[in-house]
Amino acid sequence: MQVNLKNFLAETSELVNQKLDRLVPESEIEPKNLQAAIRWSLFAGGKRFRPALTIAVGNCFGSPIEKLLSTAAALEMIHTYSLVHDDLPAMDDDSIRRGQPTCHVKFDEATAILAGDALQTLAFQTIAEDENLTPKTRVKLISEIARAAGTPAGMVAGQVFDLAAEGKQISGEDLKRIHERKTGAMIIAAARAGAIVGEATEKELNAISIYAAQLGLLFQIVDDLLDVSGTAADLGKTPGKDARSEKATYPALYGLERAQNLAAETHRSCIAALSEIEKPIELLREIADFILHRQS
Amino acid sequence: MQVNLKNFLAETSELVNQKLDRLVPESEIEPKNLQAAIRWSLFAGGKRFRPALTIAVGNCFGSPIEKLLSTAAALEMIHTYSLVHDDLPAMDDDSIRRGQPTCHVKFDEATAILAGDALQTLAFQTIAEDENLTPKTRVKLISEIARAAGTPAGMVAGQVFDLAAEGKQISGEDLKRIHERKTGAMIIAAARAGAIVGEATEKELNAISIYAAQLGLLFQIVDDLLDVSGTAADLGKTPGKDARSEKATYPALYGLERAQNLAAETHRSCIAALSEIEKPIELLREIADFILHRQS
Repeated sequence: MQVNLKNFLAETSELVNQKLDRLVPESEIEPKNLQAAIRWSLFAGGKRFRPALTIAVGNCFGSPIEKLLSTAAALEMIHTYSLVHDDLPAMDDDSIRRGQPTCHVKFDEATAILAGDALQTLAFQTIAEDENLTPKTRVKLISEIARAAGTPAGMVAGQVFDLAAEGKQISGEDLKRIHERKTGAMIIAAARAGAIVGEATEKELNAISIYAAQLGLLFQIVDDLLDVSGTAADLGKTPGKDARSEKATYPALYGLERAQNLAAETHRSCIAALSEIEKPIELLREIADFILHRQS
Repeated sequence: MQVNLKNFLAETSELVNQKLDRLVPESEIEPKNLQAAIRWSLFAGGKRFRPALTIAVGNCFGSPIEKLLSTAAALEMIHTYSLVHDDLPAMDDDSIRRGQPTCHVKFDEATAILAGDALQTLAFQTIAEDENLTPKTRVKLISEIARAAGTPAGMVAGQVFDLAAEGKQISGEDLKRIHERKTGAMIIAAARAGAIVGEATEKELNAISIYAAQLGLLFQIVDDLLDVSGTAADLGKTPGKDARSEKATYPALYGLERAQNLAAETHRSCIAALSEIEKPIELLREIADFILHRQS
């Protein structure tokens, strides 16, 4: 695989899509509507960022793609389940995502809840059954990803904090706590998963964790900035939505200029963490650059 | 542990409750409302039938309790998550379970969805991190339980079929398909988990699967019969509810007498399967007897 980010992202996205297609095939197997709802959400045009990160880190530690692909797909399934549930009327009540009706709008609420549940189950099943990895590696990965997806330090806890914060004035600390859990934990887990498969040392794992934590923060700050400055066509969603719903964001909390400075600082910390790793980290650096400069 | 069913059920229930209490402790850890919602649902007075079955089968194959307890607790967490989600307004819309407000009524819908999600995550995490088992056994258990909890052959698929059947005339075949997935698959997984930990042979595992499949069916037929004949005090729910909501049940489909005969037949198949196993199966036989004769 070339160390050229655009190619890399296109190739990994293709590989992950193929893997997901094999895991949840288009088929006549009942219940068809559930299968259709799962596929609707899985193939709704996600960027496959978490899988790409797993594969990029795995590559950096010399792991072949076949050892990474199941875990990468599992991470995307957990990410997708979280989006399906977050979009539900009882949660963020979103009817459009990436320009398409969300799962509960296209199907119905019960089906969306169950599609999310099944995606989570299949994610752990996929890792547990991945014969390219030793059982020891598989249980390490499941533990790592479950902690990042659950509570109190993971994604579900983050969504609870996020819902509790809606319509309220919150502090920078509160905002950090939300993002560290809601998106940060799974991004760290995605990066660490690649390093675990690649048999990284403890020191390397720590550096990867810092890199990924900063990358997750950078992703969020840039996301918030794009909501202020982006266009609907670029974003695939309505810009300014966060501001109108009084959602806490970095620009809302710190102002535009300080938020932009914070993005640049976070990017520097990201790159600094990589200097601890004596491996070909070029691709990981490019990912950080890409996230800083992305327009959508 | 004594081979006396009442004592056995009381002891295992106590052990499982202690384990669950350690896994989800009462604590000041944020998010407190999520933790409270999880505990509300976990400690709502469940009979701990699936964990008891795992432990009973494990005992039969000579496995010590400490090798069984995490998996037993994980099965109860998955069972509990499924109840929390099934009770949601978009699904069965139940506001009372075991005489208490359901999770989304006591808390709110978003919290109930997330409590269910977190319980599923913690279930797989708990098995992945159980150091009393080899990694190889852990991944076998996770695979087994995930297949039983997911789709197309597991619990989530069963709930989809069940929702689709509501208010419709369905056949005996359809009813069987619902129950085999919605409750049967996890009961089989619970029994097989005990046998896997106990290093049962393939032949023994097959016999245990047949025993558990018949046990699950028996459980359901008796449940349906109790809904016709039971009192609210015994059941902790309103009797006759299934009939009023035109839910497909064995008595509704076959008539009371044939449903009672079917229960007796199923019980015999259950016992017959045990004759294939050259181990102390007395407790497993007692469980089958108990389910046939239970009044609540």
